[in-house]
Amino acid sequence: MDKLDEELLQLTDTGIIRYSELSRKVNIPLSTVHIRMKKLEKQKVIMHYKGDIDWKKAGLPLTAFILIDIDVSLLQSLKKTQDKMLKELLSLQYVKEGYVITGEADLFIKVLAKDSAHLKDILLNHIDKVQGVVRTKTIVVLG
Amino acid sequence: MDKLDEELLQLTDTGIIRYSELSRKVNIPLSTVHIRMKKLEKQKVIMHYKGDIDWKKAGLPLTAFILIDIDVSLLQSLKKTQDKMLKELLSLQYVKEGYVITGEADLFIKVLAKDSAHLKDILLNHIDKVQGVVRTKTIVVLG
Amino acid sequence: MDKLDEELLQLTDTGIIRYSELSRKVNIPLSTVHIRMKKLEKQKVIMHYKGDIDWKKAGLPLTAFILIDIDVSLLQSLKKTQDKMLKELLSLQYVKEGYVITGEADLFIKVLAKDSAHLKDILLNHIDKVQGVVRTKTIVVLG
Amino acid sequence: MDKLDEELLQLTDTGIIRYSELSRKVNIPLSTVHIRMKKLEKQKVIMHYKGDIDWKKAGLPLTAFILIDIDVSLLQSLKKTQDKMLKELLSLQYVKEGYVITGEADLFIKVLAKDSAHLKDILLNHIDKVQGVVRTKTIVVLG
Amino acid sequence: MDKLDEELLQLTDTGIIRYSELSRKVNIPLSTVHIRMKKLEKQKVIMHYKGDIDWKKAGLPLTAFILIDIDVSLLQSLKKTQDKMLKELLSLQYVKEGYVITGEADLFIKVLAKDSAHLKDILLNHIDKVQGVVRTKTIVVLG
Amino acid sequence: MDKLDEELLQLTDTGIIRYSELSRKVNIPLSTVHIRMKKLEKQKVIMHYKGDIDWKKAGLPLTAFILIDIDVSLLQSLKKTQDKMLKELLSLQYVKEGYVITGEADLFIKVLAKDSAHLKDILLNHIDKVQGVVRTKTIVVLG
Amino acid sequence: MDKLDEELLQLTDTGIIRYSELSRKVNIPLSTVHIRMKKLEKQKVIMHYKGDIDWKKAGLPLTAFILIDIDVSLLQSLKKTQDKMLKELLSLQYVKEGYVITGEADLFIKVLAKDSAHLKDILLNHIDKVQGVVRTKTIVVLG
Amino acid sequence: MDKLDEELLQLTDTGIIRYSELSRKVNIPLSTVHIRMKKLEKQKVIMHYKGDIDWKKAGLPLTAFILIDIDVSLLQSLKKTQDKMLKELLSLQYVKEGYVITGEADLFIKVLAKDSAHLKDILLNHIDKVQGVVRTKTIVVLG
Repeated sequence: MDKLDEELLQLTDTGIIRYSELSRKVNIPLSTVHIRMKKLEKQKVIMHYKGDIDWKKAGLPLTAFILIDIDVSLLQSLKKTQDKMLKELLSLQYVKEGYVITGEADLFIKVLAKDSAHLKDILLNHIDKVQGVVRTKTIVVLG
Repeated sequence: MDKLDEELLQLTDTGIIRYSELSRKVNIPLSTVHIRMKKLEKQKVIMHYKGDIDWKKAGLPLTAFILIDIDVSLLQSLKKTQDKMLKELLSLQYVKEGYVITGEADLFIKVLAKDSAHLKDILLNHIDKVQGVVRTKTIVVLG
Repeated sequence: MDKLDEELLQLTDTGIIRYSELSRKVNIPLSTVHIRMKKLEKQKVIMHYKGDIDWKKAGLPLTAFILIDIDVSLLQSLKKTQDKMLKELLSLQYVKEGYVITGEADLFIKVLAKDSAHLKDILLNHIDKVQGVVRTKTIVVLG
Repeated sequence: MDKLDEELLQLTDTGIIRYSELSRKVNIPLSTVHIRMKKLEKQKVIMHYKGDIDWKKAGLPLTAFILIDIDVSLLQSLKKTQDKMLKELLSLQYVKEGYVITGEADLFIKVLAKDSAHLKDILLNHIDKVQGVVRTKTIVVLG
Repeated sequence: MDKLDEELLQLTDTGIIRYSELSRKVNIPLSTVHIRMKKLEKQKVIMHYKGDIDWKKAGLPLTAFILIDIDVSLLQSLKKTQDKMLKELLSLQYVKEGYVITGEADLFIKVLAKDSAHLKDILLNHIDKVQGVVRTKTIVVLG
Repeated sequence: MDKLDEELLQLTDTGIIRYSELSRKVNIPLSTVHIRMKKLEKQKVIMHYKGDIDWKKAGLPLTAFILIDIDVSLLQSLKKTQDKMLKELLSLQYVKEGYVITGEADLFIKVLAKDSAHLKDILLNHIDKVQGVVRTKTIVVLG
Repeated sequence: MDKLDEELLQLTDTGIIRYSELSRKVNIPLSTVHIRMKKLEKQKVIMHYKGDIDWKKAGLPLTAFILIDIDVSLLQSLKKTQDKMLKELLSLQYVKEGYVITGEADLFIKVLAKDSAHLKDILLNHIDKVQGVVRTKTIVVLG
Repeated sequence: MDKLDEELLQLTDTGIIRYSELSRKVNIPLSTVHIRMKKLEKQKVIMHYKGDIDWKKAGLPLTAFILIDIDVSLLQSLKKTQDKMLKELLSLQYVKEGYVITGEADLFIKVLAKDSAHLKDILLNHIDKVQGVVRTKTIVVLG
């Protein structure tokens, strides 16, 4: 990863993906950009390309981050790992990201919802039903 | 937004962006997918396409979420809004996402770092230097 | 809901309910106020009229807000929902309001009591006895 | 306040205000109910009658409780009391209730909003601008 | 309770218990003080007289306040009340005061210890063994 | 401090102060109890005798514990110590005990009040006015 | 322990262990230093000498402090003490120090790890598996 | 760092420093141990050797961990870094270790004291006097 690679990744991450445009932005010949990008794609540093969705326009204007406490001893008795739980949570509709974290909780997920009634449904009828979830603490994004 | 639109957005969000592949996945004729996707792109529900980066491979394996408390009265006296602060934070290198939130802090950002020494540098020499930041609380992603 | 509707609701909410008085306050002919209020009542935006009680004079000078943590897995095994629990809590005497919330607890209720001994009785002998209650945290209103 | 008074207040509080209906519910002659209610009204135990609004239908579906920390020394230097601050907060549009509390914050208010963008506006542009407010912590009602 | 009663109680509480000294302090004839004190004793406002111990000199220099969380459902199943638990805790040696409280815990006790090793023994081998104790949080007095 | 001294202090602390009664309780000859008690009094282990007040009967039924955060830098600039602050707080009427503590606050006091309105007055008009007080957190005793 | 002993221990603790160097630093004849150090070693005040490791260079650059909550009633039923649990934790590789503490948790350990993925493995596959562990809260050292 | 290096460091860290003893423990010829240890010393992986002090016997039986919050804006105006503050804290007598941390505070130090009165003195007269310290939270080690 040299400085050029880094710049290309930054731009790619913000939606500039055409080689010609990248070449203009970093002020490097198109051929070099081509080689670099192909290498980053081949090494799976750029895993793939994806749509960048405006979730508000898509009818999901409410974003929430949910800190999840786990019942460690229940998981032990179920022989279920935290990674397993995280996968289960990530398979739920409307759950977009998930992490094992340090600090005041065990898991941390990002959820999109239509409104606070919908968020309530997601929390109570889907997230709370994943075995091992003891307590959730929801942070709502404003605006 | 009908059910088909939703499905197309979900798939697009996970990196399936070729119309032929989308058509296969949702089991809908290519021509219909084409019309729908063009509409979603035109309405900017799909804002653009972007690279999905494996930041670990890109040399930034440490992800941290930082809860930021704001000095409300300092902001008042500086006539600076929280949205302004958020923009400043988002302009910092390695800061990837940012939100105004409810709950135990005012702002919430996602940061990528090389290691804990690098994270320290980002926190102390860049984030703490944004006017209005009173206190930060860092959650480190494990694994 | 136009601006006039909003003003009428605000006034109605603070105890101004006679159409003549409303007409004077918003400076709109009585006939118009009449039509609007009838519509708001018919659409159940104004659900009904109720007494506004001075609970201090009624012998319940102590107001407390109680944050309630729920045992998610117990509820699962009992096939009991949080909404069900909330209804149970709201059916208790002295419990006046109740909400499912985000943040540091699951449920949130408002309680009126005669004094701190009475509040203790309500908490220990009634609220704690509702199945699913794990922990309560009481905020006492001063004054 | 005997048992009959208490029952009448409970019913009045939930929207049963016609004497005939009250008489039926408590199973006491109308004349007695009449005397009691008149007394409760005269003693201002029933302060007045008000509309019970369905705020969701009125376009304000989002309810939030906001815990507010106060800068005690700033208030001292401004010779401003907490009761004064509370009055200021209660005079803001969309702020419905307010209390001085024990526990993890100093003031506690209830706010109604159109959606999370509106709540953000109320918090950042109105509540945060009341002198003496140091920090707010928002609890969002679900559903 | 008039002002004189209050003053007499304040003084009595700080160790001034001889009527002659009380008479001098409040500047009221001895005979009046005599009558008042006898009344306060008879009404059990002054329950009895007790030694005011300097616990440091008595070999217990370490004071700790312990916040105790209770397992509400365990208590339910044991048909044991919080008052019962409090009595059990107060019967332990070195536990001097105990309260049912609002806020971040359920019970609150004051403990005296020889040193931190002794405090550890009290906590782990006595307080933790009282059925219903889920978690304790210890505040150590400095100096 | 041998075992007998300890027992005598325990009893003295709970209001058994007559030597004859102490002698009976510990089952030791009166003459020995006399010598021991005189020694404990002379060494100021028993500092003095005081009335044990039933504050509820004395018109102060509400007990509160208040955790106080201090503005360390303000104290520095005022050349005022925490012990000085504690003395100031202890000189306030209704403040009964005070401690410098470890853990989630700096100072810790016990307050007696007539009711929640009186507690509000003590907090806002007296405790908050002591220079150096930044924030208070009140725990109310139930019952 | 006089002042000289204290100084010698301080120096010994920071890696100055040759008597000649100690003698120079404290400006005391070598013979005196010799006698004192031998006494401190014999009395096991200096328990032994050990290497002071630069764990970063040793491939463990990530230091974390972990606060551990214990399930008090599980321990009771297992007849297992907190000291026993602590020993179990200290026997785990990468766990370097351990304490029973007051305050917001029960146990407190120091862990060294290669990176955040390794820390995740230590936490989830080793610490969480010690019977009695209910919840952990991890503080990561920066830099 | 191969497995042998790791084992040697572990042993060295626990006070086994004589090559002969190390050789026996790891069951590797003395000559190999000699080469490895010399290399580890030369590369400063083993920085030096130090005494392992029994602080209880040395008259400092009370261990405390102190979480320190920093006034970020004061530091900015003083052009003082957190690392600078940490150095200042570490230069205080009785402060043994210090870290910049993530999570609920900014700095974290370990302190040894004679008793709780001594700890009070260290906190109030030394740590609180370091410019930039806003708040401290003390965790006392039990036993």
